Amino acid sequence: MSTRAGPPRVRLVQFEVKPGRPWANAERIRQAVARAKDDGVRLVIVPELAIPGYLIGDEWERSAFLRDCEAAGESVVQASEGLTVIFGNVAVDWSRRNEDGRVRKYNACFVAHDRRLIAPEGAPYPFVVKTLLPNYREFDENRHFHDARRLASELQWPLDRLLRPVTVDGLRLGCLLCEDAWDADYPVSPLSILAAHGVDLFVNISASPFTVDKNDKRNRIFAEHVRRAGRPMVYCNHTGTQDNGKTVFTFDGSSCLYDSQGNRFTAGPPFEEAEMTFEIPPATGAAPPRADSLDTIATLDAALVYGTRKFMERLGVRRVVVGVSGGIDSAVVAALYSRILPPDDLLLVNMPSRHNSPTTRNLARELAANLDALYTVASIEDGIALTDTQVHGLTLARTSGKRSRLMLTAFMRENVQARDRSSRLLAALAAAFGGVFTCNGNKSELTVGYATLYGDLGGYFANIADLWKTEVYALARHMNATVFGRPVIPVGSLTVTPSAELSPEQCVDEGKGDPILYPYHDTVFRAWVEWWNRATPEELLVWYAEGTLEKRLGYEGRVSDLFPTPAAFIADTERWWNAYQGMGVAKRIQAPPVLAVKRRAFGFDHREAQLGARYTRRYEELRAPSCASR
Amino acid sequence: MSTRAGPPRVRLVQFEVKPGRPWANAERIRQAVARAKDDGVRLVIVPELAIPGYLIGDEWERSAFLRDCEAAGESVVQASEGLTVIFGNVAVDWSRRNEDGRVRKYNACFVAHDRRLIAPEGAPYPFVVKTLLPNYREFDENRHFHDARRLASELQWPLDRLLRPVTVDGLRLGCLLCEDAWDADYPVSPLSILAAHGVDLFVNISASPFTVDKNDKRNRIFAEHVRRAGRPMVYCNHTGTQDNGKTVFTFDGSSCLYDSQGNRFTAGPPFEEAEMTFEIPPATGAAPPRADSLDTIATLDAALVYGTRKFMERLGVRRVVVGVSGGIDSAVVAALYSRILPPDDLLLVNMPSRHNSPTTRNLARELAANLDALYTVASIEDGIALTDTQVHGLTLARTSGKRSRLMLTAFMRENVQARDRSSRLLAALAAAFGGVFTCNGNKSELTVGYATLYGDLGGYFANIADLWKTEVYALARHMNATVFGRPVIPVGSLTVTPSAELSPEQCVDEGKGDPILYPYHDTVFRAWVEWWNRATPEELLVWYAEGTLEKRLGYEGRVSDLFPTPAAFIADTERWWNAYQGMGVAKRIQAPPVLAVKRRAFGFDHREAQLGARYTRRYEELRAPSCASR
Repeated sequence: MSTRAGPPRVRLVQFEVKPGRPWANAERIRQAVARAKDDGVRLVIVPELAIPGYLIGDEWERSAFLRDCEAAGESVVQASEGLTVIFGNVAVDWSRRNEDGRVRKYNACFVAHDRRLIAPEGAPYPFVVKTLLPNYREFDENRHFHDARRLASELQWPLDRLLRPVTVDGLRLGCLLCEDAWDADYPVSPLSILAAHGVDLFVNISASPFTVDKNDKRNRIFAEHVRRAGRPMVYCNHTGTQDNGKTVFTFDGSSCLYDSQGNRFTAGPPFEEAEMTFEIPPATGAAPPRADSLDTIATLDAALVYGTRKFMERLGVRRVVVGVSGGIDSAVVAALYSRILPPDDLLLVNMPSRHNSPTTRNLARELAANLDALYTVASIEDGIALTDTQVHGLTLARTSGKRSRLMLTAFMRENVQARDRSSRLLAALAAAFGGVFTCNGNKSELTVGYATLYGDLGGYFANIADLWKTEVYALARHMNATVFGRPVIPVGSLTVTPSAELSPEQCVDEGKGDPILYPYHDTVFRAWVEWWNRATPEELLVWYAEGTLEKRLGYEGRVSDLFPTPAAFIADTERWWNAYQGMGVAKRIQAPPVLAVKRRAFGFDHREAQLGARYTRRYEELRAPSCASR
Repeated sequence: MSTRAGPPRVRLVQFEVKPGRPWANAERIRQAVARAKDDGVRLVIVPELAIPGYLIGDEWERSAFLRDCEAAGESVVQASEGLTVIFGNVAVDWSRRNEDGRVRKYNACFVAHDRRLIAPEGAPYPFVVKTLLPNYREFDENRHFHDARRLASELQWPLDRLLRPVTVDGLRLGCLLCEDAWDADYPVSPLSILAAHGVDLFVNISASPFTVDKNDKRNRIFAEHVRRAGRPMVYCNHTGTQDNGKTVFTFDGSSCLYDSQGNRFTAGPPFEEAEMTFEIPPATGAAPPRADSLDTIATLDAALVYGTRKFMERLGVRRVVVGVSGGIDSAVVAALYSRILPPDDLLLVNMPSRHNSPTTRNLARELAANLDALYTVASIEDGIALTDTQVHGLTLARTSGKRSRLMLTAFMRENVQARDRSSRLLAALAAAFGGVFTCNGNKSELTVGYATLYGDLGGYFANIADLWKTEVYALARHMNATVFGRPVIPVGSLTVTPSAELSPEQCVDEGKGDPILYPYHDTVFRAWVEWWNRATPEELLVWYAEGTLEKRLGYEGRVSDLFPTPAAFIADTERWWNAYQGMGVAKRIQAPPVLAVKRRAFGFDHREAQLGARYTRRYEELRAPSCASR
């Protein structure tokens, strides 16, 4: 297989690609290449788009940036003396156009050997062009990149003439870019085409954002690929965070080798930079495959801490203020930040009004003591009173018109409180503290807009906003049990009734609180937001009528215990569906960036318009017998 | 051409498609069909995706919605007795999959005749599949729809076997969906393929969002198409507004007929529902082509009023509060709303602090009197003082740590003022008034984040945020001269120094104000944001060195009058570029929805990540001689 003696040593370099910083990334790669030379490695592999970064918005449309990427890539080629470097970069063909009329760009895999680029056999370009471009969820690669299928069509070539191995140092490499190996739903399989041409090693360079359970799926798919092809494959992915503005994604690395039997060889934990060296072909059975050891909640915990820390680093955030209510959400957020920041850089603030119980005030203080964070109490009573004085009873008149008086209702006063906390107090405190303040909202609240704009929906970052309330509880228990080894998050915060405490109707000491019923509504909201086939009230009502709703939703209680009549069930479903599709959308548009850890985080992975709540005709027909009118 | 006597009468129905409301749209179409029957019309044409709407986020992923669209479409087919109806709808092939693994969906054109669908000649489906899917700017059709090119490839057909005319009533129709006729940058031309098969009439059904100057471009392209093909074409587009969440687009209709010489026949003003009836072939020269009569600023004005009114209707907004400072932005916003709302539903609020001059306070009052709107003055002095008392000098300590005191700087106090106005006062006033409050920011401010989060950046809608400051002035002059016929927007607001009036350093009576230099910075920001080839500091510095900067930017002054030295020019460029790519991004993520009227409105048409400011290596090399260090 190799022209030299001994099996080639291959090194995967998973690193924190800095989005939009081609020279910093190129420098990082050149350092890895220099180390590889010292270590006698023959083949160095770095991830997809490792020079420009992956999630960079429309930066691809600036020619100056593209030229910078080309030059930075060339500096890596020049560093490849005496070995081979495989790296991802944007490839620009300045003589052609994309279908949007802009300059032709490919998401490309470059193979540099001895300071020269090695082209695939018979290829029109000295690089491998990505064939399958994902255009779903957070991905929009078609927006900026041309692909190998359209290129082949343009050249009037069959695709299998374009997709050929790259032979370097005697090794026939089947180069794939991320989605190229996730081919189940495409009419073509780049991997199968390459395999038919004869490949010694498949190389998949990726920029694959982390979501819970995604690695398991990849391992199944990739292991089946290598078993079918009878050839090993390496997988090399980013670490770090990258974002689409509204949605912040972590990259867990998890780079690995699959031998031709489908065994997986990996090294180091996820979410860390790492370099891994293998011999090709790998000695099967020589090292036992390493199993992923973390369960789901521990993985979520790791992703949340990592994603928050890296996002803070990118923004230059060094001090953080968390408004703590005594409830579970703010406690979990504060606990997460306590694992990132020195105690003198974390300020917890309790901002009571008359509606906040001693119970929760004490829980907030207890949390701060447990975390040994800075702590202060700042009342909002004077702020509320001032706004009340200025607004309630204000008389309005115009030159030619009748007079009217403004009135603040109890509901309006709830929102006044929330805004007073965040926009008046927390924002000023954060500025004076030299930092930022957090948004502590969870996914259940964000789904139905159960939060106040410029109030508890404010903040620089919403790092638990991709967790359902039930997951927030699970995370709190996990942190106490496993991370802290003691109840740092007060047990009272886990047991108190969830409540915004904005009115006497939300008094936790009387067991009163939020209108969202946990865990039932979490299972409903998940069906609307996260399911692959996203449910609507139509499906819910069908299942309710069938008596299969609990099973379908995975709800362990009985729906009839929550809603005694069909009319009550329908009223509840419509209340929250209206909220999800109504004010929920308006609020999400102005919400802070969300840390994505699962499928369908709000933002770029859950696109939506302000359409108001919609019901299908079938739903209207089904509900008619149960409700006289809506 | 026709099997019946006389030329067929064709009616275009441009209407306000309700996004996400298939039954409402189908009902609207059936009413138009009923009228057409009465009028002896043989062919009724409605726009692309007229059943589901066009901008509906990821609603396409809900099977219940797709089934609803199918059923609503079928109701239109059943209404086609005795005539032909051409309409756009989503077409679902439940037996196939898209490349994302979801059910196969096409953006399709249906031709219904006598209660049956007429397929293109030899077609695999009884509808026309869109061939060219736009995936740039606000468009992401590949995300949800399969296209005719991929379908042909899957069927192993040449594309020209799939793209065939639909023959109905003796007329050979070349059906195109929007982008299919904007083919300049694609390797295939659906229109040319259809023309080669023999077509009597091209029918382009569209969902084409309005932007200034787009109609001129379409008229050039489409007129050239019809002249080359020697056949007439009708164009039918939506009216109304639709949004991508962050970005709200208007649809101006502007449906028309191009005869085979390229003359354009139109009817009615833009931004109105209309039905237009033509004979095919049109009697050339019988009616003079109607010219678009509006100039750019009048068109912008029409789009802003229309877009705002329609967006309010969709959200159910009936009362509006505008914070008025006496400056030009809030005056223009108030004037726009005064043209939509009865005076008793428009409340203007002036919220002075000690820094607000009598000059601007008087201008605010004068504006309210001119508009005869409701008006009140609410000071923020007490709010600022309260926050100051609670934050400034606050001592922080933790169990084991040193004590520190929080201090509010002058800059922090500026933001305290802005947040006190919007989040404390305006939000409460709007709630008590039974309405919403507006964001009055313009595109210049939004570009560089010259606004306070939860302060002047708050609001339900930012309807002038796609206008540069110079365009805001032009709009004010236009409204005074043409709409009102008198200086409703006070002349003082046009002449006063633009200023946030948040500190003594921004005293308008001393001619001091905002750091943005109008109109120079508008021309710079336009080059960064709106240009087709988007400029960066690298290009600016090259042009500065060449002495061509003014000409390139279209700036009529001299840059050397603003910046005496290269170092000063560089410092200014970097200040604003850092702001645009730094805090500007963070602020835009949480900004209200923007009304798009031009290319590259912020939001979905200007995708960006939080990357911090980036400079190319070439820029660093160019600037080095001028500046010792940054």
